[in-house]
Amino acid sequence: MNLILLEPEELRDDNTASLSDTRATHLRDVLGVKPGSLVRVGIINGGSGTATIRSVEPDRVVLQPSIVEPASELPRVDVLLALPRPKVLRRLYAQLAALGVGRILLTNAARVERHYFDTHVLSPGCFRPLLVEGLQQARDTRLPAVTIHRQFRVLVEDELDLLTPGTTRVVAEPGAERHLGTVVEDAAAERLVLAIGPEGGWNAFELDLLRGHGFIPASMGGRTLRTDTACVALLALAHAALDRRRTPP
Amino acid sequence: MNLILLEPEELRDDNTASLSDTRATHLRDVLGVKPGSLVRVGIINGGSGTATIRSVEPDRVVLQPSIVEPASELPRVDVLLALPRPKVLRRLYAQLAALGVGRILLTNAARVERHYFDTHVLSPGCFRPLLVEGLQQARDTRLPAVTIHRQFRVLVEDELDLLTPGTTRVVAEPGAERHLGTVVEDAAAERLVLAIGPEGGWNAFELDLLRGHGFIPASMGGRTLRTDTACVALLALAHAALDRRRTPP
Repeated sequence: MNLILLEPEELRDDNTASLSDTRATHLRDVLGVKPGSLVRVGIINGGSGTATIRSVEPDRVVLQPSIVEPASELPRVDVLLALPRPKVLRRLYAQLAALGVGRILLTNAARVERHYFDTHVLSPGCFRPLLVEGLQQARDTRLPAVTIHRQFRVLVEDELDLLTPGTTRVVAEPGAERHLGTVVEDAAAERLVLAIGPEGGWNAFELDLLRGHGFIPASMGGRTLRTDTACVALLALAHAALDRRRTPP
Repeated sequence: MNLILLEPEELRDDNTASLSDTRATHLRDVLGVKPGSLVRVGIINGGSGTATIRSVEPDRVVLQPSIVEPASELPRVDVLLALPRPKVLRRLYAQLAALGVGRILLTNAARVERHYFDTHVLSPGCFRPLLVEGLQQARDTRLPAVTIHRQFRVLVEDELDLLTPGTTRVVAEPGAERHLGTVVEDAAAERLVLAIGPEGGWNAFELDLLRGHGFIPASMGGRTLRTDTACVALLALAHAALDRRRTPP
């Protein structure tokens, strides 16, 4: 926890917040704060700054933030992800948020099992704390937007332009000729939406639909990776390539 | 499981192997093989090719490999990893093997808890099947070598030259000035050893020792990641940078 994140509504009228969950435990037991200590804080989808610890009690810690920096930049990558197994998805949320994604679009696909949709891990009550955990790790305040799409075709044909406007579209394909890095470096838009298929891959219809809607196939070398490993690897490569565009040698 | 891996000693005198574990289940229930079917196989630390299924029974599958391709190239990255929490390490083995590492050096460090060493996940009986799982995912036959080092200083001063000869040495540091990609692209050696610290980072002594022994600090952007996410991201970036060296634009 490299940044303590607060919900906007946790700020009381006197500009203090009283924490009694894992954040309080972390402040007390890991950071060892005392009244007067300063800690880094941020407001979810808001700015960041430092907070002064006002009191430390066994069941709660009260702090008073001073928010001086504006909200961090929206991460430049969105992820369009064929819904993974619930156990895998649960582990991915914090990692995606830590690596930096603006939006997580979870979609159906031919090789996604139907029962994956009937799961607790698609409820905000499950994924929101995990996303916040990832943000606190990476010192970010921008909560990724999560949307769930049971109809892949409707998503790609009708919704994607609205949800991810002005983005370069890339679909990860193990066998693709061009490497993700070069595709992103050559891309026109500043933002990126990265489509990652299910275990076993997109089927031919889905790949055609993606390509027909502007998705450029890109690989990350010859090795086939599990969804969770691939997501992390592809996001790291995409961000690095976007950074290289900004700072040409 | 994109490749069925066999231990060399599983090959019998008639060049068949009888499988009765998860590989047999996968062949029978996922791939639906019948006598005469062909499947991709490899020999651990050996070549690869196809095998003909000879018989399919409820408790075992017999196949006969024809190994025609030489062993895959040794992955060009070794990882020097401050021993993570056992639960994290257990999840990392397959991911590291899938991404491609020649060697995994697990080391003590000031911020590694002592009890992490008293764990089942450091025994070959635990990690070998997990590494093989990762290789089968990525279609590789080269089993990473795992060594455990309780004395960081002895490792860096005395053992590293022998264990990872002729490598460029890089230490991942969130705040470092140069990006991992450019450090690797500019590096002299074809092979790389990548040092990744514990949660909380290396301490000053450890960083000095690493730098004093040729490790170049390199970052992967401003975000601080959990060890497991960082390992996957850094390995993906390192391999991509090594690939760019081989295929200059």
